[in-house]
Amino acid sequence: MAERLVTMEHTLRVLLEGKKYSTLKDVLITMNGADVAAVFEEIDPVGIPKLFRLLPKELAAETFVEMEPEVQELLIRGFSDAELHDVIEELYVDDAVDLVEEMPANVVKRILAQADPQMRREINDLLRYPENSAGSIMTTEYVSLRPGMTVAEAIARIRRTGVDKETIYTCYVTRDRKLLGTVSVKDLLLAADDDAPVTQIMDENVISVNTMDDQEKVAQMLSKYNFLALPVVDNDNLLVGIITFDDAMDVLEEETTEDIEKMAGMLPSDKNYLRSNAWDLFKHRIPWLALLMVSATFTGMIITGFESALAAQVVLTAFIPMLMDTGGNSGSQASVSIIRALSLGELEFADLPKVAWKEIQTAVLCGATLSILCFGKIMLVDRMLMGNTDITVITAFVVCFTMAMTVLVAKLIGCSLPMCAQKLGFDPAVMASPFITTIVDALSLLVYFGIANALLF
Amino acid sequence: MAERLVTMEHTLRVLLEGKKYSTLKDVLITMNGADVAAVFEEIDPVGIPKLFRLLPKELAAETFVEMEPEVQELLIRGFSDAELHDVIEELYVDDAVDLVEEMPANVVKRILAQADPQMRREINDLLRYPENSAGSIMTTEYVSLRPGMTVAEAIARIRRTGVDKETIYTCYVTRDRKLLGTVSVKDLLLAADDDAPVTQIMDENVISVNTMDDQEKVAQMLSKYNFLALPVVDNDNLLVGIITFDDAMDVLEEETTEDIEKMAGMLPSDKNYLRSNAWDLFKHRIPWLALLMVSATFTGMIITGFESALAAQVVLTAFIPMLMDTGGNSGSQASVSIIRALSLGELEFADLPKVAWKEIQTAVLCGATLSILCFGKIMLVDRMLMGNTDITVITAFVVCFTMAMTVLVAKLIGCSLPMCAQKLGFDPAVMASPFITTIVDALSLLVYFGIANALLF
Repeated sequence: MAERLVTMEHTLRVLLEGKKYSTLKDVLITMNGADVAAVFEEIDPVGIPKLFRLLPKELAAETFVEMEPEVQELLIRGFSDAELHDVIEELYVDDAVDLVEEMPANVVKRILAQADPQMRREINDLLRYPENSAGSIMTTEYVSLRPGMTVAEAIARIRRTGVDKETIYTCYVTRDRKLLGTVSVKDLLLAADDDAPVTQIMDENVISVNTMDDQEKVAQMLSKYNFLALPVVDNDNLLVGIITFDDAMDVLEEETTEDIEKMAGMLPSDKNYLRSNAWDLFKHRIPWLALLMVSATFTGMIITGFESALAAQVVLTAFIPMLMDTGGNSGSQASVSIIRALSLGELEFADLPKVAWKEIQTAVLCGATLSILCFGKIMLVDRMLMGNTDITVITAFVVCFTMAMTVLVAKLIGCSLPMCAQKLGFDPAVMASPFITTIVDALSLLVYFGIANALLF
Repeated sequence: MAERLVTMEHTLRVLLEGKKYSTLKDVLITMNGADVAAVFEEIDPVGIPKLFRLLPKELAAETFVEMEPEVQELLIRGFSDAELHDVIEELYVDDAVDLVEEMPANVVKRILAQADPQMRREINDLLRYPENSAGSIMTTEYVSLRPGMTVAEAIARIRRTGVDKETIYTCYVTRDRKLLGTVSVKDLLLAADDDAPVTQIMDENVISVNTMDDQEKVAQMLSKYNFLALPVVDNDNLLVGIITFDDAMDVLEEETTEDIEKMAGMLPSDKNYLRSNAWDLFKHRIPWLALLMVSATFTGMIITGFESALAAQVVLTAFIPMLMDTGGNSGSQASVSIIRALSLGELEFADLPKVAWKEIQTAVLCGATLSILCFGKIMLVDRMLMGNTDITVITAFVVCFTMAMTVLVAKLIGCSLPMCAQKLGFDPAVMASPFITTIVDALSLLVYFGIANALLF
């Protein structure tokens, strides 16, 4: 795909410079909204409004939705009121809400002024829901059917009203806005009897979500049940909107990126990498870097406390990085596995004993293997090959025993911290490698110097 | 959801023990296949076949597909040939292929024996595609329309043949299996004229994928274009199948988990956490742990090389963990941001200069901030508060200068290694924190002792 877009971008630029507008239009209408948006991102912003005006209404709206907020703002500022009205007219309500949330206040004012009264009311209604709630990502444009309708009447209603709906494939049977059941277009089309009431073929075991539910939970339900859309009900159990699978896919992608950023010790950002400048990156990265740097004071204090021992046995210092890195890696393996399983809903707090026992067994296996490897490496490479006669069998034993203990401590902390964090209502992703490394570092140094003190001096 | 299932599991167990089969059946048919499967996972395996036999055919198939391979195998081994035939009959071809891929050889033989000849041929055809290719996850059950059909004829064909198709909502207009265009049921239902030829309303700008394309690429295209399904063509450009959005969501989830596991220095696993035993976890974790432990030999050698300097200035040792951790954290922030952006297709190799420049600027900002903080901390906490008079202004300067250099090196390596890995055809996720930490550790120690040597001795 990438190659195709690169060539396309060149072609469009040449055509635009040559003012070949009718060719340009013919080329653009062969493309998909997402691709047109991608090409627009690459060309000189000055040309975008010209190109955009060449698009037919529907493709223009599709393209508009897929563009980055900066480009959307640029276009809106260049639009006449009539042009703005046309674009907003074609948007689905949930996309209009997303747009309003991204734009500065004066642009929002113009958008709301150009929206139809009905749409303006719906936008305002949706804007009231908290960020990341089901209400904030739902759309109010769904097909509702009355329980008294027959299959034929239902199909007729879909044909009459479907054009503005975000999906027609799942329809909602309601009485006084109370959701009685769902019926798919597939069921309607494949129904044996056109005169059967929709209540006869509808599915009454409706799975719905509340407007205040977390968007990530909703997205995971759509993914789990393979639904095209999920109905959203308010606290009185009345149907207020639907969330479609495409929005769920976007939410899952966004939430996963956030989790990954947190696991790597960054504050989550809603801009993508290329759109963030160095200052943005700095702001998202410095808090954890600074906090973790300051907390490394403890490891420093531990080393200072054993300074005299280290001065007598400088060879011990050489193994500090290896012990710390192995501890950090062991801990991050456990914590990252657990954080991912938590976010996929595979684990809950009640599983902690099972998880801890599994990690202890794994730690014993890993610790034993690493210690044996490490002992061999120290005696063969460090002592014999490098001829470092300061290293005795006892030194090697101290290092390897510390290694095994470090792995055990790291795996236990790595698995239990994220689960406890979630239980306490914190985000488990924050309890990932950088945070755990700091704790494991301190503990492993204490073990190291403790054993060294006992055996070597 | 979790709470609901827990109660449900208890209810079912009590009903099963009391042999209340008709109540059990009434309860089960109110549930969704995914939920029934989740409940089955929790109860004693002995009871599963009994409960499964209570399910109506369609729900039984839905449930079967959602169960873990171990439970599927247990059920199949307990099935009579007739029961097995009924379940396979109800499966979509792509689900049947997934099943065959998971089962041991003797179970596969029984499955293929009980499948209809047509289905058996399709399963065998799909099994030939390489793992993780578009061909391996597609289904051959789609609605195809002939170009000569009118809208009314197309709708009639969907109503006649749609029942066995994985989706009816996107239909494919083909001539001699060559794909001419796609038409959605929405377009058909909303068409103004029932006698218009489908060729008139179909979308000719078809976006398709090749059977050999990577499944992750396909899933990302579905997510990008918000399509319900993507057509899959062979090397002769003939339509051979489709991939639906629900399979794409599963692929994205799976591939993201793999990426996260690799980033944390684990071999990716296709079992989920609770299903893996300690031995599985050990096998996936020990290779990177061992490799990284051995590679820490270099850091050890560097320290040994400066042993005499360290013996004279033991205070330098106390800052090693802080420098190493800050380097590791800085590097993993950069590498993880880049790896995620690469896997979402937001970055390509040509962006490397732009990325490197952004990381240099960020590194300067982070490095400067951390150095100032660190200088203050060393002079105030370590020297004045703790009264460690070994620490001079020059020592603090050496530490802070190393800190700034380490952050710079870490960010540069962190951003460039994953991009180069991808360019060379390796998986960028492997170039994440643990790997980069080892390199950054060694470089930062060299800088540290180099400057210390120049300024302190």
